Parts: sequence; structure tokens; C-alpha cells
Amino acid sequence: MSEYEPTKRTKVFRKPGRGSYDRELVHAILDEALTCHVGFVQDGQPYVIPTIHAREGETLYLHGAKGNRMLKALVDGTPCCVTVTLVDELVLARAALHHSLNYRSVMVLGTAREVTDPEDKNRALRCVVDHIAPGRSDEIRGADETDSKSTRVLSIPIEEASAKVRTGPPIDEEADLDLPSWAGQLPLTSGAGDPIPAPDLRGDPPVPDSIKGWSRT
Amino acid sequence: MSEYEPTKRTKVFRKPGRGSYDRELVHAILDEALTCHVGFVQDGQPYVIPTIHAREGETLYLHGAKGNRMLKALVDGTPCCVTVTLVDELVLARAALHHSLNYRSVMVLGTAREVTDPEDKNRALRCVVDHIAPGRSDEIRGADETDSKSTRVLSIPIEEASAKVRTGPPIDEEADLDLPSWAGQLPLTSGAGDPIPAPDLRGDPPVPDSIKGWSRT
Repeated sequence: MSEYEPTKRTKVFRKPGRGSYDRELVHAILDEALTCHVGFVQDGQPYVIPTIHAREGETLYLHGAKGNRMLKALVDGTPCCVTVTLVDELVLARAALHHSLNYRSVMVLGTAREVTDPEDKNRALRCVVDHIAPGRSDEIRGADETDSKSTRVLSIPIEEASAKVRTGPPIDEEADLDLPSWAGQLPLTSGAGDPIPAPDLRGDPPVPDSIKGWSRT
Repeated sequence: MSEYEPTKRTKVFRKPGRGSYDRELVHAILDEALTCHVGFVQDGQPYVIPTIHAREGETLYLHGAKGNRMLKALVDGTPCCVTVTLVDELVLARAALHHSLNYRSVMVLGTAREVTDPEDKNRALRCVVDHIAPGRSDEIRGADETDSKSTRVLSIPIEEASAKVRTGPPIDEEADLDLPSWAGQLPLTSGAGDPIPAPDLRGDPPVPDSIKGWSRT
């Protein structure tokens, strides 16, 4: 099936035209976003923590040090929400009310499970590195047993998910169209500057492919 | 006082050297981030929703349409968490384990109150527009009574807050320093492309100052 089943919790009610449950779109947004924001509850208090995610098929991976408080909370099966957002353009209207942003966001609701099988865990950790810089996993020393033991990997099935997208120009009221204000979109750009070699780099290794041509889009 | 009092809930335990409670730093990160992610709980499920925020002194404003589900939940005094994150650099190590991101993030915990006083509400809405593009409020039609009635504005006092910041090169193990992999930082850049005039723009108004020189840093 090419769409996620919208639930009461993921259905976009306000401006439903902006909502989408399309798997390909959800995947593309998750893959383009460098980081996600993970929401979970402890003692009635919600926390929202930024972290790196990675997607493999219909699975989302989170990872971190064994002592990481968020992962410890999630591993107990507490419900979580993983949200990613890409901001594409400023939307500038003639009226304050109609100012907006063009964006693409995804929300995934679910519960996490710990990945303990060594092979699965290793594959997940490679996914995380390659999420940040595709191909990077092949250029470096992978996780050895010590690394793996000090790291926790969680998987969240992408089952209850929705995307929300705004595109296009500002929509002003007819009565405001004769106002003298400029209105339109301002596209936001992102890219990479020049790589900075580590101060303790030995020899003169070339900047690798994963970094030389790095771009997110 | 120039620092927020760290609480059990905002104190950075893991890598405490990355934690900061400095008011100026917290303000600067909140001001630079275009959007925030708001966490709240409904029926035991956490939700994380991206939205535009604005700061005025020690107050954080959120806003949206009257029917907005998140604002409706928050106005009842349910605890929330507002997190903003700026990703500055990829951190590329010789070992997978030591890959990271350089980032600046802020987490604000609190409860929201509705801003109902018309003057306060108008000022808050100007803050929101100027958060996206400083000076824009003076170039457009502000919220009239109808606009104001259809909009809800919430304020959250910035009292329980912390920042977390990573800077600098990758930190590899001594034993990995002779590996042939390139290591270092890749700075991420952001900016703006050419403004796109609205298709229904009348006359030929010049691109205003708030947009012409728009930059986030």
C-alpha cells in the first residue's frame, strides 16, 4: 500500500489539503532532514529532544550512548513522537495574518524497541552514519564490539505517520490586494562550506567523496 | 541574574560541559531559529509540532488559528516543552562512533497562558512577524479586529530553560589516529535565494528592506 492509514491521531484536520499520508513523501522528508525532534513524557512532563535519525524501509532508527536519558525512557515502551521539519521558504503577504512558511514536515507516532542483534545493530549504525553523509560508512572504521556495547540503538516502526506540506505564494484577502506592500516568497537555501580538516589529522588524506560533493537535496 | 536556575528537568547530565544556562545564549539561539518544536501530551500520547515562535524579553510567544489543536491543548495549562535546534556542522571522525553534529539547541519547559489584552496581543503578533523577517511589521497591514479574533496567542515564561551546544573537531581515540580516513568538520551554510513576487502583486512595489538583505545570522 502506498499510503499510511490516517488515524485519529495523525489525521490533519486543520487545512487538510496540506496533509498527506503518502509513503514516498514521508520517506523523502525523513531522509532529507538531518535531525529529528523526539517527544516523550516523564512524570507528566513532555520533553522534546533533537537527535539524529535514520530510516531503513519502514523502520526509523535512533541511537545514542547507553546512559542517554531519552533512550532509557523510550526503551521501556513509553509512547513517543518523532517529528522532522524542513523549512523551504518565507511566505510574505500584504497582511500580517497571512504570513507563513512553506515547509515539509513528518510526524511518526509509535513506541520504540531496542535493537540487540549484533548484525542488525551494526546495520542500523551504518544507516545512521550514511544518513548524515551517504557513503561515509565505507570510508571509516565501523563500530567494534566496545563501541557497540556503549551504544544503544532503538527502532520505531513507521506505521502511524503523516506529512504536512505548504507550498506556493501568500494568499491575501481580495481587499488587501491594492495595498502597496511587496508580497511573495523568499526561498531559503542550504549548503556546505569548505571542509575543515581535524587538527590531529595525520598524513594528507584527500577529502572523501561523501564530503566533497555533500548536499542535502 | 544572567543565568537560569538549572532544575532536575533542565540540567544537562550527559556531557555536562555542553550544557549552559546562560540567558544571553538561550536568547540568541531562540532568536536565530526560525521555527521551534512544541511538545505536549494528549491522552498519554506526546505530540511534537513544528511552529513559529517569537521571543520578547523572557517571554516566548506561540500563535495560530483559533481552531489549532495544539494551542487548544496548551491553553488549558497542560505542561509543554519548546525546543529549538540549529545544526551548524557535520563532525566527521575516523570511527563511526565519534561522528557527531555541531549544534546549538534550547529547551524551555513551562505552561502557556493565553494573551487576551488587545494591545499585548497585537504586540505579540508583531513580534512573530518580525521574528521571521525583522522590520517586516512596519511594511504590512497589521492584524485588525477580525484577524485578531481568529488568532490565538499564547505566552510561555522563559524560566526553566537550558541550552546545549557542541562545537569543535571530532574527538577520535588515540588508537584510531593512524587510520587513513579523512576527519574534520563540514560547516553547513544557509541563506536566501532570489525573492519570488506573488502572482497577484499589483503595480511594481520594490522588494523591501526586510527581505532584500534577509539573513539569519
